[in-house]
Amino acid sequence: MSLLTVGSVAFDKLETPFGKTDKIVGGAATFITLTASYFTKENNLVGVVGGDFPKEMLETFKAHGINIDGLSIDESGKTFFWHGKYHDDMNNRDTLDTQLGVFENWEPTIPESYQGAEYLMLGNMVPAIQLQTLKKLNKRPKFVMLDTMNLWMDIAMDDLKKVIAEIDCLTINDAEARQLSGDYSLRRAAKTIMAMGPKTLIIKKGEHGALLFQGEKIFFCPALPLEEVFDPTGAGDTFAGGFIGHLAKTDDLSFENMKRAIIYGSAMASFCVEKFGSERIQDLTEIEIDNRVMEFVQLASFELS
Amino acid sequence: MSLLTVGSVAFDKLETPFGKTDKIVGGAATFITLTASYFTKENNLVGVVGGDFPKEMLETFKAHGINIDGLSIDESGKTFFWHGKYHDDMNNRDTLDTQLGVFENWEPTIPESYQGAEYLMLGNMVPAIQLQTLKKLNKRPKFVMLDTMNLWMDIAMDDLKKVIAEIDCLTINDAEARQLSGDYSLRRAAKTIMAMGPKTLIIKKGEHGALLFQGEKIFFCPALPLEEVFDPTGAGDTFAGGFIGHLAKTDDLSFENMKRAIIYGSAMASFCVEKFGSERIQDLTEIEIDNRVMEFVQLASFELS
Repeated sequence: MSLLTVGSVAFDKLETPFGKTDKIVGGAATFITLTASYFTKENNLVGVVGGDFPKEMLETFKAHGINIDGLSIDESGKTFFWHGKYHDDMNNRDTLDTQLGVFENWEPTIPESYQGAEYLMLGNMVPAIQLQTLKKLNKRPKFVMLDTMNLWMDIAMDDLKKVIAEIDCLTINDAEARQLSGDYSLRRAAKTIMAMGPKTLIIKKGEHGALLFQGEKIFFCPALPLEEVFDPTGAGDTFAGGFIGHLAKTDDLSFENMKRAIIYGSAMASFCVEKFGSERIQDLTEIEIDNRVMEFVQLASFELS
Repeated sequence: MSLLTVGSVAFDKLETPFGKTDKIVGGAATFITLTASYFTKENNLVGVVGGDFPKEMLETFKAHGINIDGLSIDESGKTFFWHGKYHDDMNNRDTLDTQLGVFENWEPTIPESYQGAEYLMLGNMVPAIQLQTLKKLNKRPKFVMLDTMNLWMDIAMDDLKKVIAEIDCLTINDAEARQLSGDYSLRRAAKTIMAMGPKTLIIKKGEHGALLFQGEKIFFCPALPLEEVFDPTGAGDTFAGGFIGHLAKTDDLSFENMKRAIIYGSAMASFCVEKFGSERIQDLTEIEIDNRVMEFVQLASFELS
């Protein structure tokens, strides 16, 4: 099935306990769409970059079979830039600089050829733009997934609630689930959030795995304990890309298949953190992915007797 | 098989966001032995209490089939007392008062009838006493498990390392694993710690579940997402009691059976936190336990195709 991803394509400058980078390509939509390319062949990207965006990265997208007709290049401006520094525990980070550039006044344009997409991934960005994107589609996709962050809960909660009411699946981290629901218990928080609209909720807990909620059903997906987390940037987006990529590939929205999708998402995220930025998820093989998924099976499987 | 538990039997005074208690019976060995009583019928307790210890609690132990011949009653002194207060997130707590009482100069005495125990659980206490206990056994048990805490890493690391070298399985939390190994990565920390002696290591992560390590093998056991955590006191001891109780019952030390044991331990811990102190684990039924274990199966099970 066809997957449409709308979100940021950006430059990141990163500092982790293991090293630093100059500007490298990042952005939610970059991680999502590259990851999804390992699962679905119909992969459409909508975003915006400035005249400073490297042409080689456009070729990389194309080499992954990603349709970038919807990636606007605004030669007059600069690509969205984020500079972040991770603390020693890798769970906390400081934003040192943010320059929105061409992303600031951007309004997504959906190419005619993208219309009719069955699966839609709205990457983390201004909620009003996420809502606008939904309205620009001639046909409501079969499955709409949205990622967001605490910033929008702080400054645009009304818009965020409006778009959350329209989607099928929300993915946020545990602190954001607590903020959005006002409840510390994740089990109760999940009920409150699902009552806002989405039938399915994924609560990401980083190195502690992820919880999948749907009605009364809960599934817990562990994170693989890694020897080294080199750079967590993009892990959440990679996770989302693996999840929706698997759903788009299989076109099966049962809870059982969503469990598989979250395992694939976690497996892909475990690759992402092994190198800086999207480097690792640019060159994966099917065998590497299958082997990593088998590590999750071994990690989580048990039999009572 | 016969299980011997050595550790504190104490009074706790607790404050949580949900309420306060006066002195209630707690202590590592109390939680461990009560929990193990649901699994093994040969359950022997070694500990010490003062003249102020309630006779009704002795009857409760007996009603659970626990042999308390090894529980010394020192009428001249007072029972070990701990007063703690939990923060809103329940993951952190302050110690408001500790009075060691009769526990201070106690040396465990192993009744002759306890000798020959196949399974030994050394609850969290001074490492020198844990080591002394091991030496007082005529025959080395088939399986020795030990719990400890950061305090002993701070003030008695040499003794702790000595006793860790003698045991089969260590259970500690994630912060303690990092402290003991000097490594932030839990996967590398586990290797370092297993090289100190124990073939099996359990790293407890509270609401985030637990990891079981043995050689190159890893199993992740989730924690059940609960609507409410009322009082976390004793959850780690209850977890250990369920784990070693299941092993003693089945007398099967394979990794596959340890996976089951950790699921049982987690299920028991999920009961423990539902009420203050050991109240909830004093009155469980087999059906309640089986149903709770089935919730873990549903929470963690998936099939790739």
